[in-house]
Amino acid sequence: MTDIFFPEVLGTATLLLLGAGVVANAVLPKTNGNGGGFLMINFGWGLGVFAGVYVAYKSGAHLNPAVTIGLVASGDDLGGDTALKVLVYLVAQMIGAFLGAVLAWAAYRKHFDDPEADPDAQLACFSTGPGISAPLWNVITEVIGTFVLVFVVIAFGHTPSGLGPLAVALLVVGIGASLGGPTGYAINPARDLGPRIAHALLPIKGKGGSNWSYAWIPVVAPLIGGALAGVAAHAFAYA
Amino acid sequence: MTDIFFPEVLGTATLLLLGAGVVANAVLPKTNGNGGGFLMINFGWGLGVFAGVYVAYKSGAHLNPAVTIGLVASGDDLGGDTALKVLVYLVAQMIGAFLGAVLAWAAYRKHFDDPEADPDAQLACFSTGPGISAPLWNVITEVIGTFVLVFVVIAFGHTPSGLGPLAVALLVVGIGASLGGPTGYAINPARDLGPRIAHALLPIKGKGGSNWSYAWIPVVAPLIGGALAGVAAHAFAYA
Amino acid sequence: MTDIFFPEVLGTATLLLLGAGVVANAVLPKTNGNGGGFLMINFGWGLGVFAGVYVAYKSGAHLNPAVTIGLVASGDDLGGDTALKVLVYLVAQMIGAFLGAVLAWAAYRKHFDDPEADPDAQLACFSTGPGISAPLWNVITEVIGTFVLVFVVIAFGHTPSGLGPLAVALLVVGIGASLGGPTGYAINPARDLGPRIAHALLPIKGKGGSNWSYAWIPVVAPLIGGALAGVAAHAFAYA
Amino acid sequence: MTDIFFPEVLGTATLLLLGAGVVANAVLPKTNGNGGGFLMINFGWGLGVFAGVYVAYKSGAHLNPAVTIGLVASGDDLGGDTALKVLVYLVAQMIGAFLGAVLAWAAYRKHFDDPEADPDAQLACFSTGPGISAPLWNVITEVIGTFVLVFVVIAFGHTPSGLGPLAVALLVVGIGASLGGPTGYAINPARDLGPRIAHALLPIKGKGGSNWSYAWIPVVAPLIGGALAGVAAHAFAYA
Repeated sequence: MTDIFFPEVLGTATLLLLGAGVVANAVLPKTNGNGGGFLMINFGWGLGVFAGVYVAYKSGAHLNPAVTIGLVASGDDLGGDTALKVLVYLVAQMIGAFLGAVLAWAAYRKHFDDPEADPDAQLACFSTGPGISAPLWNVITEVIGTFVLVFVVIAFGHTPSGLGPLAVALLVVGIGASLGGPTGYAINPARDLGPRIAHALLPIKGKGGSNWSYAWIPVVAPLIGGALAGVAAHAFAYA
Repeated sequence: MTDIFFPEVLGTATLLLLGAGVVANAVLPKTNGNGGGFLMINFGWGLGVFAGVYVAYKSGAHLNPAVTIGLVASGDDLGGDTALKVLVYLVAQMIGAFLGAVLAWAAYRKHFDDPEADPDAQLACFSTGPGISAPLWNVITEVIGTFVLVFVVIAFGHTPSGLGPLAVALLVVGIGASLGGPTGYAINPARDLGPRIAHALLPIKGKGGSNWSYAWIPVVAPLIGGALAGVAAHAFAYA
Repeated sequence: MTDIFFPEVLGTATLLLLGAGVVANAVLPKTNGNGGGFLMINFGWGLGVFAGVYVAYKSGAHLNPAVTIGLVASGDDLGGDTALKVLVYLVAQMIGAFLGAVLAWAAYRKHFDDPEADPDAQLACFSTGPGISAPLWNVITEVIGTFVLVFVVIAFGHTPSGLGPLAVALLVVGIGASLGGPTGYAINPARDLGPRIAHALLPIKGKGGSNWSYAWIPVVAPLIGGALAGVAAHAFAYA
Repeated sequence: MTDIFFPEVLGTATLLLLGAGVVANAVLPKTNGNGGGFLMINFGWGLGVFAGVYVAYKSGAHLNPAVTIGLVASGDDLGGDTALKVLVYLVAQMIGAFLGAVLAWAAYRKHFDDPEADPDAQLACFSTGPGISAPLWNVITEVIGTFVLVFVVIAFGHTPSGLGPLAVALLVVGIGASLGGPTGYAINPARDLGPRIAHALLPIKGKGGSNWSYAWIPVVAPLIGGALAGVAAHAFAYA
């Protein structure tokens, strides 16, 4: 199980370090990338996945509970002891996401604490939130985005290509650019909840609340989307 | 024929979901990607093709009537029953494009209905239109863009490269950046007509007309461009 | 020789169509990509090379007299009949570059003729010019840029990688972003001179002069840079 | 040892030529890329690594003392004569970085000397500096960024992928976008110190000081980060 645990912790931490980092670069004051635009953010997250997949290659690089659940829903038993392994994946992903967000905070510490840093911007570096608050539609957006992620990742396994980690990185760039507009594309429960806990715990000057009333959406919706994608991939014989 | 139908429906739906989505992200109000720029749009469409090609690999991933027609014009008989198969491809692509646009609308529902959403921007998420209306020149632009797409896609088949879906994705990024300026690079009849029907049918607050007077151009011109590319590819021995 | 001539004409035309096109998209009025930024221009040119290399794979895809001269300078005899083949390459590249620029003009016809189109912007779609006019330093900039292009392209041949056309495409994106600031990175005599002739000949409303006094620099400097790169590649055993 | 020395000099010079060049393009007056944004800068550096890796493939393309030190810390003996080889790598990297910066200065000579060129912008083309000066936190940022670089580069060696130089190029794009906000991602002692010396020596009109009080941070912190990454990679069995 340590062959799952450590790679998933390290890989998800890498993902969040680069993902939370690119948002910090784009929205916090006095950074080089301030105002760098949404495409830069999309590349930062996509390349965070890219680096994280290399780091977590021994565990299959799920890095995302929605991927783990989606694979199981598609009929993959993860090599046996499925329930236990799912638990190990999910715990490791949560721990890794928390640690990665803490590292991103450390890298941008002085910019988080700058008097010009806005509480909404501070939170945006950790967790997602909706442009227009509307729970049902926010759920739908996250379900759709996660469905695309997990369905296409499963399809990767059945198509010949030497792209490996680059394929999923580009997929995440595309989902971000295309479906990240309304809710900031959590599409990963650990990516959102782990850093939200970090936001709540870390000392950040002038920080506001962690928007816990929204926190269930980027957890529940990606799990639904991932599970639906796994079932659909099985039904359409992609898995 | 179901080996063609379902992959083409799913793949073209994926293409349109990400393609219509990135435009919605760039032009609708209160999104994270608002004002994200044309290069972000180019990447969104290119990576929509990328994801769609993986999803539709069983059918050869045409995703575009101009590609289907172009392949036939180049001498490819699609494995026999050519006329029937062409029909299945085209119907599936139209259905997929319609469904993908509906999904993009669902993902951006509240942003489409926002009072600040402009009718032109709403339509732009579904279908293309010209910066300067001039039917003959708009046709020429779309013919040239589609010619490049189909000719180079056919050339891919004769060159050694492990890039697979990435090659066509990058080609579409390039055509978008370089030839998408005047008419928004439909270069695919299904990509334009299916979503235009969706725009006409869907409930969108404050929407304007679907610009049907322009609708023939992004259907006819890409078919001409694709057919010419197939003939040229055959003549120059690329096919 | 037709195995060189036609692929080089078609490949260089593809390069210029996408390259001139992306500049037109960025600088002409009423386009979707107006103001799209220099990185979009870099990607347009890079992906123009990408598409052009696939189209011209039968001739080795030089697409650039500086590459042809550089290869010869590095000791490559082009398979015999070197002087004649060099001539065929260069003539084909010039014709292709001219034709590609004409196609880009056709694709953007109405935007070229728009009353808001600036004469400098019109010319910039065809040919390069310096931000600060200083012949010696403009020559140095173009020599350096072309040296990097040709030296690294030769190095590609000695390193294992399945990237093929993508490698040179990305190299051109990088040279553009990094060394295109002062002179617009012609780094290719045909890319600059062919389109400049097209600019002089085509009917473009309100166009100014074709800046012939500068025209020798993007012809001579890339030839020097390419030849130096070939000699250096030979000296350092890359070729 | 010349099999290490010359490739490392040439490869690091290529890296710095494109890296310093893209900053010059973005921040100096009257360039085509002026105001091109941080993502363009990230691509310029990443593709500088890409080109540099091809140029230095014979020496393993370290291009960075932190990579050399990290490999040794991970248990790699560099094929024997380790201490001497480390010295050759480091000297070559310093010389190459200095030369590359001089070439970038030559390419942008007239833009450096333009009366509108700002002293801070002139220095930024050569060396990094902090957005918020805070030595401890600036060190932490550089340690984290370099750790990611070296750890993932070592992980590349244990994962199957045909991406080769593209993988490290994309990693550098990602580290730049995500972790380059506070200190400009030196993540390489030679990349920062060599050009800083060039800035001090070169004739640049209106230049200010070379900010020597900061110069130790982008030297010391990347060495710490690289060494820690090597140790961690060994401990977690990536090396």
